[in-house]
Amino acid sequence: MVTVMVTSAYITVAAFLLGAICSGIAGYIGMWVSVRANVRVSSAARRSAREALQVSVRAGGFSALVVVGMAVIGISILYAVFYVWLGVDTPGGMKVTELPLLLVGYGSGASFVALFAQLGGGIYTKAADVGADLVGKVEQGIPEDDPRNPAVIADLVGDNVGDCAARGADLFESIAAEIISAMILGGTMAHRCKIVDPSGFILFPLVVHSFDLIVSSAGILSIGGSNKSGLKAAKEDPMTILQKGYSVSIVLAVIAFTVSTRWMLYTEQAPSAWLNFALCGLVGIITAYVFVWITKYYADYKHEPVGSLALSSSTGHGTNIIAGVSLGLELTALPVLVISVSIISAFWLGRTSGLMDESGHPTGGLFGTAVATMGMLSTAAYILTMDMFGPMADNAGGIVEMSQQPESVRDITDVLDAVGNTMKAITKGFAIGSAALASFLLFSAYLDEVATFAREPFKQVDIAIPEEFVGGLLGSMLIFVFSAWACSAVGRTAQEVVTEVRRQFIERPGIMDYKKRPDYGRCVAIVASASLREMIRPGALAIVSPIAVGFIFRILGHCTGHPLLGAKVVAAMLMFATVSGILMALFLNTSGGAWDNAKKYIETGALGGKGSESHKADVTGDTVGDPFKDPAGPSLHVLIKMLSTITLVMAPIFL
Amino acid sequence: MVTVMVTSAYITVAAFLLGAICSGIAGYIGMWVSVRANVRVSSAARRSAREALQVSVRAGGFSALVVVGMAVIGISILYAVFYVWLGVDTPGGMKVTELPLLLVGYGSGASFVALFAQLGGGIYTKAADVGADLVGKVEQGIPEDDPRNPAVIADLVGDNVGDCAARGADLFESIAAEIISAMILGGTMAHRCKIVDPSGFILFPLVVHSFDLIVSSAGILSIGGSNKSGLKAAKEDPMTILQKGYSVSIVLAVIAFTVSTRWMLYTEQAPSAWLNFALCGLVGIITAYVFVWITKYYADYKHEPVGSLALSSSTGHGTNIIAGVSLGLELTALPVLVISVSIISAFWLGRTSGLMDESGHPTGGLFGTAVATMGMLSTAAYILTMDMFGPMADNAGGIVEMSQQPESVRDITDVLDAVGNTMKAITKGFAIGSAALASFLLFSAYLDEVATFAREPFKQVDIAIPEEFVGGLLGSMLIFVFSAWACSAVGRTAQEVVTEVRRQFIERPGIMDYKKRPDYGRCVAIVASASLREMIRPGALAIVSPIAVGFIFRILGHCTGHPLLGAKVVAAMLMFATVSGILMALFLNTSGGAWDNAKKYIETGALGGKGSESHKADVTGDTVGDPFKDPAGPSLHVLIKMLSTITLVMAPIFL
Repeated sequence: MVTVMVTSAYITVAAFLLGAICSGIAGYIGMWVSVRANVRVSSAARRSAREALQVSVRAGGFSALVVVGMAVIGISILYAVFYVWLGVDTPGGMKVTELPLLLVGYGSGASFVALFAQLGGGIYTKAADVGADLVGKVEQGIPEDDPRNPAVIADLVGDNVGDCAARGADLFESIAAEIISAMILGGTMAHRCKIVDPSGFILFPLVVHSFDLIVSSAGILSIGGSNKSGLKAAKEDPMTILQKGYSVSIVLAVIAFTVSTRWMLYTEQAPSAWLNFALCGLVGIITAYVFVWITKYYADYKHEPVGSLALSSSTGHGTNIIAGVSLGLELTALPVLVISVSIISAFWLGRTSGLMDESGHPTGGLFGTAVATMGMLSTAAYILTMDMFGPMADNAGGIVEMSQQPESVRDITDVLDAVGNTMKAITKGFAIGSAALASFLLFSAYLDEVATFAREPFKQVDIAIPEEFVGGLLGSMLIFVFSAWACSAVGRTAQEVVTEVRRQFIERPGIMDYKKRPDYGRCVAIVASASLREMIRPGALAIVSPIAVGFIFRILGHCTGHPLLGAKVVAAMLMFATVSGILMALFLNTSGGAWDNAKKYIETGALGGKGSESHKADVTGDTVGDPFKDPAGPSLHVLIKMLSTITLVMAPIFL
Repeated sequence: MVTVMVTSAYITVAAFLLGAICSGIAGYIGMWVSVRANVRVSSAARRSAREALQVSVRAGGFSALVVVGMAVIGISILYAVFYVWLGVDTPGGMKVTELPLLLVGYGSGASFVALFAQLGGGIYTKAADVGADLVGKVEQGIPEDDPRNPAVIADLVGDNVGDCAARGADLFESIAAEIISAMILGGTMAHRCKIVDPSGFILFPLVVHSFDLIVSSAGILSIGGSNKSGLKAAKEDPMTILQKGYSVSIVLAVIAFTVSTRWMLYTEQAPSAWLNFALCGLVGIITAYVFVWITKYYADYKHEPVGSLALSSSTGHGTNIIAGVSLGLELTALPVLVISVSIISAFWLGRTSGLMDESGHPTGGLFGTAVATMGMLSTAAYILTMDMFGPMADNAGGIVEMSQQPESVRDITDVLDAVGNTMKAITKGFAIGSAALASFLLFSAYLDEVATFAREPFKQVDIAIPEEFVGGLLGSMLIFVFSAWACSAVGRTAQEVVTEVRRQFIERPGIMDYKKRPDYGRCVAIVASASLREMIRPGALAIVSPIAVGFIFRILGHCTGHPLLGAKVVAAMLMFATVSGILMALFLNTSGGAWDNAKKYIETGALGGKGSESHKADVTGDTVGDPFKDPAGPSLHVLIKMLSTITLVMAPIFL
């Protein structure tokens, strides 16, 4: 028994390191490509809008495919190595249905890196952005991305760090965690139902994500060069083009998904089960589509919510903030309803699939929600492409501004940048939606694992017990405190940037007349070291608190004769943190995005335009929204999943 | 069976109406006293600070005693009537241990009125306040409470409506709900333990709150006229005097509590049980004291949190809002930890009390948390006194300003007003703390009731089941949307006030030279009708959504063969709404209070003082904080308990 535990610990550590390294590589490649693509996009923008779009989408697509590919290949290699090394399915060896449990370390390593990438990257990008704007735009009145601003390079670097690398690590983590938990669930279910060849159920998620690579590539390649002539091409809205590509991916995804369910999930015990699971996948794909649509409605200033927010800024800073906060709080409703309907309908479809366990109970429910999550993530590479294209367009705009290109070139990158902003909001909506679906899976995987270790059934998390209720309180509190720390980290770091930029303007008066070069490096160094420092506190909170709570209640349980108390309280903590985290992330992302776009709306000349009192109020709103929508909101997506994976890995110490 | 159900329905309706009427009367008396006391306080302020304090505390104390007394008397009458009418404890009649279940209607009626009082009152007071300030202070530059401002009367009326009446209804509801749920739990426990005379356990809460009346009166009366001579008396800090009174009440409460546990809860089956319960009461009293202390630390600008918030306003509106939001989010931690420790320790003390059920399991745990809640509320009348004294001082200040008294009189009321503001924050902290403790009781009462109706055990709320997880998601969402609607209601109503005040200033230019009288009545009418209209939407959401969710899942459960599904999903919804509600209310109250006091701190001359850029940023913060700390935060206290009582009453329709 002890040997098994020790081996299991080594395996977990190895898987953890591999997951962390793969996530790091995925993030690094994302940034590497992005840095190289920026110049090409700005060069393409001198020729035509369509070409600039194509270059940035393809560069984003390359990074996205690398991210998804790394997740699939990493898990496949790990699976194959364990299969051979541990002599799975040989007499006396391990059963194949238990193998996926050994992979949890990989997901946990990926979450670990993703949390810090998202936190550090988010703090980096927003601190540089806010700091550069506060002194450059507000105090000195120079335009955005002006080369005289000492913080401008830090701001551009921040876009790569915060958006390309961090979102890459985030989606890498989503896919890895989702694949592993679906494999665990598939294995457990196949074992319970005594399916003769369970490998189809276990390997299904890997097949789905391999299809994702093909399906999304088709979508990306459909955005080719235009064959329309000059004027007509210039009028094309980049948003429409990207949406067409998405439709291509979605249609292909539906076909690929149906084919792979028939191929992998057909079993003679329940001949029509694959059809139910195909429908679960469809539920997931529809959920993804609806989420994209909802977020677009909330983020785009052509629609009512942002329009009314912009209007509220006409009575001042205060009313604008109240309106933004209540908008964000209110608009949590629709996504939550969509998620609720998908969870229940996927569960129901899985349950009625005809798969029964030994005692004749329907048992496919949870696997149904797993398949729905896979469906939701079946076009993940395309979504990630759309996300990565934004910062590239943004940076290309920066390069165009700094190299003093003609106004028309800047206009092209500006249009792409605006579309990129909406796309970033959409990806965040998508990420939180898939996190919500996946968390439920990870949570079930945790219950299964505790039951395996404790050798007794562990199926219930009963919040009518005071300790578990307290666990829930602490879980929700974790989300509130984490959000607070993520927001205040940006504030503090931005303050350091402001001080440095002010200092440079005072000490080197020649900067403003282009006579002296500002010291860009110092700003980059300040932001880099501050964001590394500032991410420690929220990151440590996220990692330490579930372990501490589990351990304390384990001891309390030991004293009062409840051996599973630690594991149960952690389970409650996990669930409440997940629910509060979903809502808080939706709130932070939505209000942050809405303030940003309300400002953009006024900058188009509406309600008095640039420089008016309304605009000032909206700049305040945007400043408040920056830490909401960047480190805080997206870090919560990762936090939710990291809590699950870390408790999965740490489960043995709660017992 | 049908007859029993129908009788039970009539009883519930009658109790509901009585609860609603009593709550209404309590609120009305609070307002009646307050309106009459305002003038006396302002007159007393012309003589001495001490006298003004004494008059306002005694007036507040009178209302507070009426509120607590109404709760105790109402429940006692109802209990006595049911006891006689239903022939309790006669052969063939009802058992006395089942009687408390019939009282739930009373608590529900009280919650119903409290929710609307808190929502309507909060919207009223803040809309009038924000509207009056935006035009009067900001646009026209006239001082606060200036008689030329057409909205000034509406603002003063708002203080009475929002603070005296609403907080009175809120605490009335807290006490009623807590008494009833503790009676239910006491009855159930006495029945399970086969205690010969269970009436001690059932009537214990009524005794504790009768003692509350005496104990708090002693505290109030200890604030007598000063016998110190002029200068020394003037230097006395009203806060210190009020705290001394609180200490008197607390010490007496400990003694009274210990005496009543020995008297009511002594049973031969477990001779030392009363001592454990006395310790539970002590846990509650300490919790109350710690909560008061924590809130004071967070709300008072002498301490670090508000000081650093004020500092953040020096870099602008945006950074001030970010700092306030993260402050509020972060400071949820300490209260949650305190509540967690009290729940667990009270439960543990109750469990080890020696009371065993038929099968020999320790069974006093939940009753222990009930006793702790009673301990927390055992000085409720004194806390309510401190709360009601604030708006009276505020209004007295308004009367002093409008009747153009000398500056020194205004100084006296200003000091009292500032103390009143901190006190208001403290009462809110106390209210949410007791709501958190009480919610756990109400929740257990709900489980007991469902089990009684369904005639099968119902002990678990298992969030590992997707439907219940979805219930939890919806519960948390309810809190977010409710908060959004409460905040935006203030914004919209304030907008109407702004328009009206601007109109009056334009159409009657003589107002500014005191030549014409503004039309105060119109502003009062606008605010009154708008707040009545605006409270419908959030109120309806709070009432309809648990019923709708319970009903929908009942039908779903009926179709899929889970008879208790509706009741279970509602239970999960309740728990998640409670936890999210506690955190959200703490967040909203703390940031709202902190912004208010940061502004007051700068108005004392710190960081540039009135009129500086920092002050402007803090005025923005205060405007944002107004809807947070008035309708939204305190309405959530009531919402949490109303969800419990409404589900208690509606439980039969989920089955």
